[in-house]
Amino acid sequence: MSYAATYMEQLGIAAKKAEKTVSALKTAKKNAALELIAEKLMQNAEFIKAQNQKDIDRARERALTRAFIDRLTLTDGRVADMANGVMSLVALPDPIGEVLGGGELLSGLSVVKKRVPLGVIGIIFESRPNVAVDAAALCLKSGNVCILRGGSDALNSNKCLADIMRGALSECDINPDAVLLVEDTEREIALEMMKARRYIDVLVPRGGGGLISTVVNNSAVPVIETGEGNCHVYVDASADARMAVEITDNAKTQRPSVCNAVETLLVNADIAGEFFPLLAERWGIGTPEPKVKIYGDAASAKYIKTEREATDEDYRKEFNDNIIAVKTVKNTDEAIEHINRFGTGHSECIVTGDLDNAEKFQSEVDAAAVYVNASTRFTDGFEFGLGAEIGITTQKLHARGPMGLKELTTYKYLINGKGQIRK
Amino acid sequence: MSYAATYMEQLGIAAKKAEKTVSALKTAKKNAALELIAEKLMQNAEFIKAQNQKDIDRARERALTRAFIDRLTLTDGRVADMANGVMSLVALPDPIGEVLGGGELLSGLSVVKKRVPLGVIGIIFESRPNVAVDAAALCLKSGNVCILRGGSDALNSNKCLADIMRGALSECDINPDAVLLVEDTEREIALEMMKARRYIDVLVPRGGGGLISTVVNNSAVPVIETGEGNCHVYVDASADARMAVEITDNAKTQRPSVCNAVETLLVNADIAGEFFPLLAERWGIGTPEPKVKIYGDAASAKYIKTEREATDEDYRKEFNDNIIAVKTVKNTDEAIEHINRFGTGHSECIVTGDLDNAEKFQSEVDAAAVYVNASTRFTDGFEFGLGAEIGITTQKLHARGPMGLKELTTYKYLINGKGQIRK
Repeated sequence: MSYAATYMEQLGIAAKKAEKTVSALKTAKKNAALELIAEKLMQNAEFIKAQNQKDIDRARERALTRAFIDRLTLTDGRVADMANGVMSLVALPDPIGEVLGGGELLSGLSVVKKRVPLGVIGIIFESRPNVAVDAAALCLKSGNVCILRGGSDALNSNKCLADIMRGALSECDINPDAVLLVEDTEREIALEMMKARRYIDVLVPRGGGGLISTVVNNSAVPVIETGEGNCHVYVDASADARMAVEITDNAKTQRPSVCNAVETLLVNADIAGEFFPLLAERWGIGTPEPKVKIYGDAASAKYIKTEREATDEDYRKEFNDNIIAVKTVKNTDEAIEHINRFGTGHSECIVTGDLDNAEKFQSEVDAAAVYVNASTRFTDGFEFGLGAEIGITTQKLHARGPMGLKELTTYKYLINGKGQIRK
Repeated sequence: MSYAATYMEQLGIAAKKAEKTVSALKTAKKNAALELIAEKLMQNAEFIKAQNQKDIDRARERALTRAFIDRLTLTDGRVADMANGVMSLVALPDPIGEVLGGGELLSGLSVVKKRVPLGVIGIIFESRPNVAVDAAALCLKSGNVCILRGGSDALNSNKCLADIMRGALSECDINPDAVLLVEDTEREIALEMMKARRYIDVLVPRGGGGLISTVVNNSAVPVIETGEGNCHVYVDASADARMAVEITDNAKTQRPSVCNAVETLLVNADIAGEFFPLLAERWGIGTPEPKVKIYGDAASAKYIKTEREATDEDYRKEFNDNIIAVKTVKNTDEAIEHINRFGTGHSECIVTGDLDNAEKFQSEVDAAAVYVNASTRFTDGFEFGLGAEIGITTQKLHARGPMGLKELTTYKYLINGKGQIRK
């Protein structure tokens, strides 16, 4: 067996062993552990920042981008955010043990369908160390063991955070292997992780499109995809043009780096002449420092200054930046077709005053969240009332849209008889 | 683009086009189409059998096994079963459109979580042509388009069944591409199907372990695994030995070829001396023609005649035949450990009179259905009240255990606002 396979097998065996106790933990014990994790994060803020600084220094040496270093950096505020995030889980109801259904069958068998943890969840993420804490805390509250595999650039930060969490678990008499970290960030080990069906029940990649497609294409373990959001705003002919500007501006610029930000704007030709000038004004298009860069088709360029012509590649892209692709369409059908072709099934919006078009758009657009007259930025576990989220999925199986604690569970049927056999 | 990729792309485009209308079909229209499919299957029984005979003749020429030919063969009874299966779906409630939740968010947005079809479902199956009809009918009722890819050995049968179904759809004014058949059974095309993420939302392999692992290992499309069942019966020390014999006999011999049949028998050492002789008597073990062949460990062989020693390979195997692997264990913990190591997470049973052991077994065994004192053979969509099933999954995501119409759906969030933006 290769070194990578052996490494993963050892982690897998530890995870499976921990699973047995973690899945059976009482709510009070899980909550006590979460509280202690939050407390220890705050107590160790200086140490965390010092470890994080090593990663930052290394990233600077390697001249990584400012955005990258920003995602990597842990400040006092971000440490407090992590601790608060962990504490927020304490207040949420424990999903485990919930009876989802059941009854007596014709054969006299009694059946109970009960919610149980998934088991061992692998989290593969990039350079944001707070993901390690968020994900581990969600897994713990939902009775799951987690195996964390973060990017090599954040290894010092992740090690330190994992150590703090494992220490808190031990103090609470919980097997610390409930939280496992892949400390060797060799690619081969990540690939073994994706094949480790015997040990890992689900993989959750958290990061950009490249990471997600690597996991999807290499994984034999079932994957819950999160994160890739090529979201659209479609401004219908009957839209309130000012409302459309507000929504487009909010969806693009309020936080451009996140997955529910809009990436492509579709505008009905009949409103283009009214809408585009208002948008240009809002974004200072044509000024030396426009708020947003526009890549657009020829029809749109008649009404608004574009940086260059938009390509299919642009329409497919998650810019995660103050850039937007723009296209003028002739009707709602063309908008829907464009979205279903280029979208990632995340969040899509129509701005309209026409009921039929609103209904058609919501019915035919194939996405987790389909908005009428509201910003796509609302797609979020907190906004949707889940209390917390491990990510937003763009797949259709198991969970769609924001995923909270319940989405980290499965169920099993418990069946009791008195010797029944099948006739 | 290769021939295989082009072939699959054409099917995919047709499927996506059909999806739009199929997902929006009214219940009455879907039911009318199901009724017509059932009617046409009955009307064309002779033609179906004639086409099927070609496949049978070819299978005989190639000297395929009797069991294989049995699975392939369509008799009048089996045609009627297919038609009845289709008709049974008419009576079931339409899952599509169900409102699963929703409400008003803090921001004043109104959210409705609505059940919708998955979209395009790929079914990859082996030589049982009835799967084509069962699967297509379930997909239709749940508003999904299906792409059927059956084994080359059943191609004439599958073509004929697909034609009949497509004809019925056309007559009902439904796009016949709601049911698509991969008529070229080249392996490359099946592999392309597994990569066709743009066109296929979910793959459901139906068949043996080899087929399932091929699909799991090669698929970039999300997979719902069905079928592999390495099920266990554990006879606890406190079991009623006669009940244990009844359950073991039923779970093994009532229909050995199916996934919920038992494959390994675990016996507590303390009851081995009482239980094994009763089982030997029931199965005529030691006679020239025993009902079941036993591969067992040395400890079991003291009490019951075994064909040979059981290997780990035997404990991992789905015999689907009148063969059982047997092991004597010292307690419930060892039984659970064996099951979680070798089982496929399908159906597991403890025969016991001890409440603690029953609860421990149900809590710690990681499987879709965990039985106390009943045959594993009850794991079935009909028995569980789903009315029909597309298979029984052994995975934990999305669905676990028997899958009916609801398991062929997902949901989407429909959100209506009045211009809300995120602060």
